[in-house]
Amino acid sequence: MADTPLQRPVTRRRLLGTAGATGLALGVTGAAAGYTAAAPSETVTPLAEVGSRREMFHVKHQPGITTPLHARGHLIAFDLAPGAGRKEAAALLRRWSQTAARLMAGEPAPAGGHDTGIALDAGPSALTVTFGFGHSFFARTGLEKQRPAALDPLPEFSSDRLDARRSNGDLWVQIGADDALVAFHALRAVQKDAGQAARVRWQMDGFNRSPGATEKPMTTRNLMGQIDGTNNPAPSDEDFATRVRVPADGDPAWMAGGSYVVFRRIRMLLDDWEKLSVTGQEAVMGRRKADGAPLTGGTETTEPDLERVGKDGELVIPLNAHARITRPDQNGGAAMLRRPFSYHDGIDDEGVPDAGLLFLCWQADPLRGFVPVQRKLDRGDALSAFIRHEASGLYAVPGGAPKGGYVGQELLEG
Amino acid sequence: MADTPLQRPVTRRRLLGTAGATGLALGVTGAAAGYTAAAPSETVTPLAEVGSRREMFHVKHQPGITTPLHARGHLIAFDLAPGAGRKEAAALLRRWSQTAARLMAGEPAPAGGHDTGIALDAGPSALTVTFGFGHSFFARTGLEKQRPAALDPLPEFSSDRLDARRSNGDLWVQIGADDALVAFHALRAVQKDAGQAARVRWQMDGFNRSPGATEKPMTTRNLMGQIDGTNNPAPSDEDFATRVRVPADGDPAWMAGGSYVVFRRIRMLLDDWEKLSVTGQEAVMGRRKADGAPLTGGTETTEPDLERVGKDGELVIPLNAHARITRPDQNGGAAMLRRPFSYHDGIDDEGVPDAGLLFLCWQADPLRGFVPVQRKLDRGDALSAFIRHEASGLYAVPGGAPKGGYVGQELLEG
Ligand code: HEM
Ligand code: HEM
Repeated sequence: MADTPLQRPVTRRRLLGTAGATGLALGVTGAAAGYTAAAPSETVTPLAEVGSRREMFHVKHQPGITTPLHARGHLIAFDLAPGAGRKEAAALLRRWSQTAARLMAGEPAPAGGHDTGIALDAGPSALTVTFGFGHSFFARTGLEKQRPAALDPLPEFSSDRLDARRSNGDLWVQIGADDALVAFHALRAVQKDAGQAARVRWQMDGFNRSPGATEKPMTTRNLMGQIDGTNNPAPSDEDFATRVRVPADGDPAWMAGGSYVVFRRIRMLLDDWEKLSVTGQEAVMGRRKADGAPLTGGTETTEPDLERVGKDGELVIPLNAHARITRPDQNGGAAMLRRPFSYHDGIDDEGVPDAGLLFLCWQADPLRGFVPVQRKLDRGDALSAFIRHEASGLYAVPGGAPKGGYVGQELLEG
Repeated sequence: MADTPLQRPVTRRRLLGTAGATGLALGVTGAAAGYTAAAPSETVTPLAEVGSRREMFHVKHQPGITTPLHARGHLIAFDLAPGAGRKEAAALLRRWSQTAARLMAGEPAPAGGHDTGIALDAGPSALTVTFGFGHSFFARTGLEKQRPAALDPLPEFSSDRLDARRSNGDLWVQIGADDALVAFHALRAVQKDAGQAARVRWQMDGFNRSPGATEKPMTTRNLMGQIDGTNNPAPSDEDFATRVRVPADGDPAWMAGGSYVVFRRIRMLLDDWEKLSVTGQEAVMGRRKADGAPLTGGTETTEPDLERVGKDGELVIPLNAHARITRPDQNGGAAMLRRPFSYHDGIDDEGVPDAGLLFLCWQADPLRGFVPVQRKLDRGDALSAFIRHEASGLYAVPGGAPKGGYVGQELLEG
């Protein structure tokens, strides 16, 4: 029997005849003043499908919010270094924005610059880099007056088991890509750019399904095996721009077109969870494991029948089912866009898997998104027994930077 | 400007008209008695390219050795539980082999069994599961007489900074796949199968480039940005079967067709490394950063000219260059097949990146492979200043299991 060859023999197909789809993938159909109008011809074409996908940096809303889930991600929070203030922060955000734009275009460091080379050979691989500001940023830079009320610290929840050293931070960067080396390359560049201005506070890695692992694009699964992300607001929804984004006339003005992201590192108690039968797991969620359909039937996208009672006289979708009590119509309309990564940091000192969700949800106002829903979950939905919130963050993520500008410029130079 | 849609709009192409390439990807051109002869039609075709790739379990040599590098990997070592012996170990290896064969075929748990569901929707994604036995296994199971001399503990090296808790182990499992959820699904299944028979000793995660991130299949890069894997023995080499595999008449008989794997968790001191200029980095390696060609010119696969002297009267490839002193012709013919994963475990308590290589090398005999080369590197090649060996393992990886059999059966029932 012959050995398997070490080099992959499978043909890599190029992006040919898919200009339309590519234009879509770039999320660009026209250009506003100062922002990129990417023609399909601007894509990096001589690369295979995964590598060639390119997201734009100089767009109205920062990338990495409505971008399709990435196979690989890094979250990294920084604190400004002692002595660093508004000036140093502005210079840092300018460096970071330039680096992000360059890396997202798949370009190496400019001549004379020092590139680690880790991403060489690969295309941009849908890389996005997203920047946010935490509550503590504003006092350190003398910008308290510009601090959005929406950044007020999240309430403490009784079930919280938060590690302060892995929570919050002055600055927050989210990196996502469909290639792990491309993502790591960006992580090192972002760390290096911080220079003397800021120090890493915490850092976490995550992942999602690889593009092409399923027959067609599908809602991803999480490490509990559930289809996760079904009932997310869609960018095409009429109210998306007001529920997920800060409106153009929002307050403060520098956050117009931006969004607030709540981050929670949520450990899954997998050893307990996996002891449940599939039926037991489905009751916890109110949805079927196999296809994500509501327990009252249909397909993944069928509306659940919340009133239906079974032969046993009980509600088919239990009162404490996660997918029931998180619904906007159960929470005064509270809505958020969930765009998480799974994480796995091996086993902890007790031999228990340290795995779960880097939960990230985006909304125009956390008090009308994450907070009311988490208040309810904190009282104990059926899922609560199987998860533990271990770290937390809340960041103001301004709109995108026009060409020549940088993220947060209106805040830092306003 | 329109928002980027959340679902990937890019067309997933199916494996059509690539039966030949698929056959190759399976590494199967014929069948020996008891082993699978996979016809191309046996591949899981209605899935996209990444998901549909399938490796075979019941093959002559265990999968995961010459399989193309995987995008995602897990290494996990177990110790037999107190009280568990040969019988429990045999039952465990049988369970594991059945699970591996099933998962590699992309099949869920049999009816009545409990599947976590994490891999649902995805294809096998080139999943491989590989099993090995450590030195300590044999005393615990009363099989000392069967213990290969090749498993004698590796010598201590002066530069070693080994963490015993993350080294060695009775049993070792390597999981690789091109989808992170498929790999994690297998990890959970392997852990669950261990049941009361064995306990996790240590566990590590790694990654490589995603398939399709580069234009054509290429040698991967490591986190130092180097092309890594160029001068690997190829399965088509005349002496591959004797240098990488234990020959059919090898000793002990149960290891015929198997291989020995040396594992080293090698931290890269990236903050130091990245301070070097590209020229400085190239002198450390003796190869060019951009394309992996030797400093004496040509392309990645050109033979280096080890004698050439530059205008400055110095050797063009320095005497202590890593790619010079690791060569078989500098080490009495010592050869090994390196098939590593990169790893990144965030930042350590000092804020320094905990990243590097899960170095895995395969050979017929570690004393004629890893050991002489590492002895020389330990004396200090140019790379030594930038790396630190933090964990170590050596495992006997027997040949593959025929249908109905399990890995290690000849050892455990011999
Ligand atoms: C590890 C923790 C969690 C897991 C495994 C999880 C899982 C799920 C699943 C499987 C669904 C149903 C499918 C879908 O619509 O996406 C869902 C829905 C949802 N979850 Fe979670 N969730 C977690 C934590 C949270 C938290 C902390 C919040 C917010 C405080 C949240 C808010 C929501 C919302 C808003 C929905 C959609 C409800 C609807 O509109 O139908 N989840 N979650
Ligand atoms: C983080 C640690 C290491 C890094 C970054 C590294 C990197 C490299 C690179 C870039 C090459 C040249 C390209 C190639 O042929 O693959 C190479 C070659 C090689 N390395 Fe390493 N290496 C490391 C550790 C080791 C160790 C511990 C050993 C064995 C003890 C080893 C053995 C070899 C061998 C045998 C070759 C091929 C030499 C030849 O035949 O030309 N390496 N390594």
